[in-house]
Amino acid sequence: MKKDLTIAALFELYKSLLTEKQREIFSSYYYFDLSLGEIAEITGSTRQSAYEALKTVKDKLLEYEALLSLNKKFSLVEEAVEGCSKEVKDKIKAILGE
Amino acid sequence: MKKDLTIAALFELYKSLLTEKQREIFSSYYYFDLSLGEIAEITGSTRQSAYEALKTVKDKLLEYEALLSLNKKFSLVEEAVEGCSKEVKDKIKAILGE
Repeated sequence: MKKDLTIAALFELYKSLLTEKQREIFSSYYYFDLSLGEIAEITGSTRQSAYEALKTVKDKLLEYEALLSLNKKFSLVEEAVEGCSKEVKDKIKAILGE
Repeated sequence: MKKDLTIAALFELYKSLLTEKQREIFSSYYYFDLSLGEIAEITGSTRQSAYEALKTVKDKLLEYEALLSLNKKFSLVEEAVEGCSKEVKDKIKAILGE
């Protein structure tokens, strides 16, 4: 499974909508860099189940972005304030990054 | 049931996460100003069911706000750009209002 930055950004935006188990499997793979085999071992499942669980999370994140477009909207906001003061830009970053 | 502006704002933010049926009942009550009795008549249910369905939607909207804080974040963004040019402020309004 390809690890890409966009999906990690979507995870940051929508992780509160996932279950704890979904957050765990995502973090194990994307942040702690465990292999699907290692995740399967920890969760007492198979590599195939781990793969499918991760795919479900990824699909959910893409679905949320299709519905809410937060990643797109937040990028556009940062773009829109490009010419504003550093203070404003920092504030915006802090608000959207929370 | 009290009709308030905040819940309508939350509906605008999170309606894409609701089912079509949930969107319909919310709009009937909040936008088209139908009574619970009228909604029950249209949907072939009882006033009590209509009340409960509407309550479920309202709870869902509040839950989404508790999880994603978009209403709060968007207000803070608009506040943060208060001192920027009209062009920037209009752009932000358009992005967040989409």
